[in-house]
Amino acid sequence: MLLVHVTGQDQAPWAAAFAETLAPYPVVQHGDGHDPAEVEYIFAWKPVPDAFEGLGNLKAVLSMGAGVDALMQHPRLPAAPVVRFVADDLSQRMSDYVVAHVTMHQRLFTSFRSAQRAHRWDQIKPPLARDVTVGIMGMGELGQRAAQSLGPLGFALRGWSRSRKSIDGVTSFAEPDGFDAFLGGTDILVNLLPLTPDTAGILNRTTFGKLRRGVLPGGPVVINAARGKHQREADLVDALRDGTLGAASLDVFETEPLPADSPLWDIENCYITPHISAVSDIKSCVDYFTRIIQAHEGGGALPHVVDRARGY
Amino acid sequence: MLLVHVTGQDQAPWAAAFAETLAPYPVVQHGDGHDPAEVEYIFAWKPVPDAFEGLGNLKAVLSMGAGVDALMQHPRLPAAPVVRFVADDLSQRMSDYVVAHVTMHQRLFTSFRSAQRAHRWDQIKPPLARDVTVGIMGMGELGQRAAQSLGPLGFALRGWSRSRKSIDGVTSFAEPDGFDAFLGGTDILVNLLPLTPDTAGILNRTTFGKLRRGVLPGGPVVINAARGKHQREADLVDALRDGTLGAASLDVFETEPLPADSPLWDIENCYITPHISAVSDIKSCVDYFTRIIQAHEGGGALPHVVDRARGY
Repeated sequence: MLLVHVTGQDQAPWAAAFAETLAPYPVVQHGDGHDPAEVEYIFAWKPVPDAFEGLGNLKAVLSMGAGVDALMQHPRLPAAPVVRFVADDLSQRMSDYVVAHVTMHQRLFTSFRSAQRAHRWDQIKPPLARDVTVGIMGMGELGQRAAQSLGPLGFALRGWSRSRKSIDGVTSFAEPDGFDAFLGGTDILVNLLPLTPDTAGILNRTTFGKLRRGVLPGGPVVINAARGKHQREADLVDALRDGTLGAASLDVFETEPLPADSPLWDIENCYITPHISAVSDIKSCVDYFTRIIQAHEGGGALPHVVDRARGY
Repeated sequence: MLLVHVTGQDQAPWAAAFAETLAPYPVVQHGDGHDPAEVEYIFAWKPVPDAFEGLGNLKAVLSMGAGVDALMQHPRLPAAPVVRFVADDLSQRMSDYVVAHVTMHQRLFTSFRSAQRAHRWDQIKPPLARDVTVGIMGMGELGQRAAQSLGPLGFALRGWSRSRKSIDGVTSFAEPDGFDAFLGGTDILVNLLPLTPDTAGILNRTTFGKLRRGVLPGGPVVINAARGKHQREADLVDALRDGTLGAASLDVFETEPLPADSPLWDIENCYITPHISAVSDIKSCVDYFTRIIQAHEGGGALPHVVDRARGY
């Protein structure tokens, strides 16, 4: 039996979609009357505190999101393997977001928009893609996909991750020793890290101050498409106002939805999107976990299982 | 002897650069004392009416820009071959511009920016690149390069040109019969056409009305990186205001610099850049024409000669 437990959005369409693709395998919803001992899989998004109560025969926890940080912090998360959502669809959306914001900043959007508001014909010359270095933090599925999209556009690429990676066309740096060297050659910093105790707050004033200056005339740029808790928003506000950063593109925030009184909304060189860089598409997510449940029921291994020691 | 004749910007650095790369071949500037009968090549940008006076022994006219429309309209253009500037550098800059603006519109920049101004957390979902069709008008050097950059990002691509082209991954339409079919499946229209009497004013209300509606929630988008005379600005103003177009990115204008009282400056969904999509880099341009002059003096043929019947 699959238990569907989704909060913060409508649960019924998810249960209906799973019921259709998994039939005749039984699918129930959180809040239904059902025997928790019969539940073999739980599909979870932002589970409530007693979400896992009585699930004594659980084979796996299936996470709707690619990021599992909220799930990992659940105080009563069972010992069963946690499977992350890894889908071409999701990776493509994230890569689309990264390419759009990287190229916008490379082409000096903020400067041209400011000139436009002043009716000013100001022929500054954007740098070529090949003269701009994009530094990607987190070189997992999403980071590698972003690199694959940015590479053919001509950008110089570097990646920073827990362990050194060998990826074509990407200069690799590993934590923690390589962090300063990584930042020192980066013009546009893209955060795609998993959120763990080690990476929380990593986008702070000290980090911003180590980025390369001089290639982008307005100053270096930060793009955060991972988790709001990676960033210190007070530091971002200061850095965007005092020129430490030329601009920021933020899809995630310490508190979501971003409170209406956050100063970030009104900062001209801060580009806000409401956590939509990579929305889990219901069809592709249901298809993905249906394949996984069916393969596992047939004796196959679970893919993309979270390493609890690493936290992702 | 090479005669350097540049107006609208400083001529001396161009002459100095050519003198260095071509030495010992003689280089003079327009306005210097020199015998026009000795001039074998003229490097020209926005030539004055008597620019070609007395040049009886001209082997070629070298055009600083990739677009030669202004030169073609010069009433006293000599019969010598006109050579266009075609450089990797220039094509890359143009492609950078096109990618930045196409991806910005695909990711619904205008909608998110409008929500940001209102401090509104509005989770609309941008379409995947593969669900968006980019229609490129003009499939020469620049159009093909733009297609090469957009293809790997996943966009569906179609091209429209004088004659049908066979380019991998691009659905080809030819003028004039294919124009309506081409427009009818296009969500983002990118103009990279040469300016000729046939293409002047092609970006008009009738054209805008034939673009596909429904994929981009705000309406279809026009990007013009070719020539200002391709567009009817009064039609653009109307179409951007009444929703016929969701947005426009314009790098070129009927009159340049764009007059301070143009209504385009203040239209929120109109993204203006001051004719910088592809700036001719002095070094790459001088290197390009130096190679051409030296090869031609050694008996080689001239590349990229303008077809006077076509006008480009």
